[in-house]
Amino acid sequence: MKKEKVEIIEVGPRDGLQNEKQSIDTEIKYSFIKKLLTSGLSKIEITSFVRPDRIPQLADSKELCKKLESEDFRKFQCLVPNLKGLNSAMESGMKEISVFTAASDEFTKKNINQTIDESMQTIQEIISIANQNGIRVRGYVSTVIACPYSGSISPEKVLDVVRKLIGLGCYQISLGDTIGVGTPIEIKRLIQTLTREFPIEIFSGHYHNTYGMGVANVYASLELGMRSFDSSSGGLGGCPYATGASGNLATEELVYYLEKEGFETGVDLDKLISASETIEKYLGKKLPSNVYQAMISKNR
Amino acid sequence: MKKEKVEIIEVGPRDGLQNEKQSIDTEIKYSFIKKLLTSGLSKIEITSFVRPDRIPQLADSKELCKKLESEDFRKFQCLVPNLKGLNSAMESGMKEISVFTAASDEFTKKNINQTIDESMQTIQEIISIANQNGIRVRGYVSTVIACPYSGSISPEKVLDVVRKLIGLGCYQISLGDTIGVGTPIEIKRLIQTLTREFPIEIFSGHYHNTYGMGVANVYASLELGMRSFDSSSGGLGGCPYATGASGNLATEELVYYLEKEGFETGVDLDKLISASETIEKYLGKKLPSNVYQAMISKNR
Repeated sequence: MKKEKVEIIEVGPRDGLQNEKQSIDTEIKYSFIKKLLTSGLSKIEITSFVRPDRIPQLADSKELCKKLESEDFRKFQCLVPNLKGLNSAMESGMKEISVFTAASDEFTKKNINQTIDESMQTIQEIISIANQNGIRVRGYVSTVIACPYSGSISPEKVLDVVRKLIGLGCYQISLGDTIGVGTPIEIKRLIQTLTREFPIEIFSGHYHNTYGMGVANVYASLELGMRSFDSSSGGLGGCPYATGASGNLATEELVYYLEKEGFETGVDLDKLISASETIEKYLGKKLPSNVYQAMISKNR
Repeated sequence: MKKEKVEIIEVGPRDGLQNEKQSIDTEIKYSFIKKLLTSGLSKIEITSFVRPDRIPQLADSKELCKKLESEDFRKFQCLVPNLKGLNSAMESGMKEISVFTAASDEFTKKNINQTIDESMQTIQEIISIANQNGIRVRGYVSTVIACPYSGSISPEKVLDVVRKLIGLGCYQISLGDTIGVGTPIEIKRLIQTLTREFPIEIFSGHYHNTYGMGVANVYASLELGMRSFDSSSGGLGGCPYATGASGNLATEELVYYLEKEGFETGVDLDKLISASETIEKYLGKKLPSNVYQAMISKNR
């Protein structure tokens, strides 16, 4: 029987590394991304074209893209906050970008100093030019379950934001449980609300593991037909809203889980672990992924 | 609507602490158990009556029980490996004990220097005397998914062991995924095999989080009607088969998950975290529970 495919969008090099306190050599990022490609990952968010003074960790986006220029850029994504970022991304050869908003005004205000509606203005400008240049645009919606500033978010609020992003031309929506508080019952309620209006195929689950619910939420999403998930190798990234807590769901957990459950991810777990190991050694601190730690300890 | 209850068997003081390298003051254990009781936990495995030279961590079982003597011992359980242990447990006022075997001969041989069948001989002697003294006996079956020495374990093999334990008089069977490799599809296959012959009510899921699958496996078990789970506060315990890896599913994750999914555990999460904090401070190292770390960091 042919296995059903599940898409994994690896966000470690961007979402993961941008939250690290220490700066990371471009050469290390390059080597990390090369190893991620070798593991079989075919969608990697490699960086964000942001103002270097805002996120100094990602100030080397152009240099990084230059180093990667012999690679297939259809495998790469990057975050773009504004037209300036879009231009840099295009100059760097990016074929696919992501735009960012949230389902909470309090969250977008604190993060990008815009209301959700204001962020839609920016996104509209970005998508318009991106599409003219044949660039696909993915939309991130943060705080789909709860906001660190305003609490619970209703599925209807998320639906409203999704409607706008799809209307503006996003081809895929990443549903971010940014603070990782969601449990399966909430994830299912959200997906059921969204899929009353949109097909499940346009959604990707971006579940943080802050409360250890990451895999369970993937399980719930798979039950409702979702077949695309974001994750970060090694669980890189931490939670910016809870110091010392876990952040992104680890790609190792996702691959381990999906492959054992009979899905095809295209990712070689041992090679993925080798990619994470590069970063763990460089950062000099234990990565949060349980699968990573269990497998590394067996190999010792 | 009345919430459905889920039973939690807290194994931190025994399964958790026995794997710690440093010895722990009896006074700290006492204070830990008192706080666990205050949190609302009503089933706590407080110790194991083993030879002090085998597990020095638990050499103070009698002293600990003495300190706890004003408590309701119907809330306590302890592990008993042999008749000598049973006698000590009874002298110490225990009302409920657990016996131990596995679904892999290689595992029981390495752990207790007995085959499964030989362990049944010991268990038969223990249960016979325990029952004469009005003491209830719970049976632990380790390696229900895989053995660290011999690999995969078939559900039929587990069923065979369960049949024997129930035949000997165990009232409940704890199904231990000792190395935490199982995923929902395997857990469901196991439960489905066992419940062809026994009611789901006699089983308790004891899932380790070594590969981050703990909550997802609880999810799968709940779907099949299981309403009893073992866990360890703070995720205490580590994995003795993979140094540096996680072990027991954290009680914090279990309570967080179950309560949000609409079940009743009777446990106050904040008070539980206060219990775990006692041990974290004493051990001087970060506990593996994600919920614990996320909530502690919010309170700082």
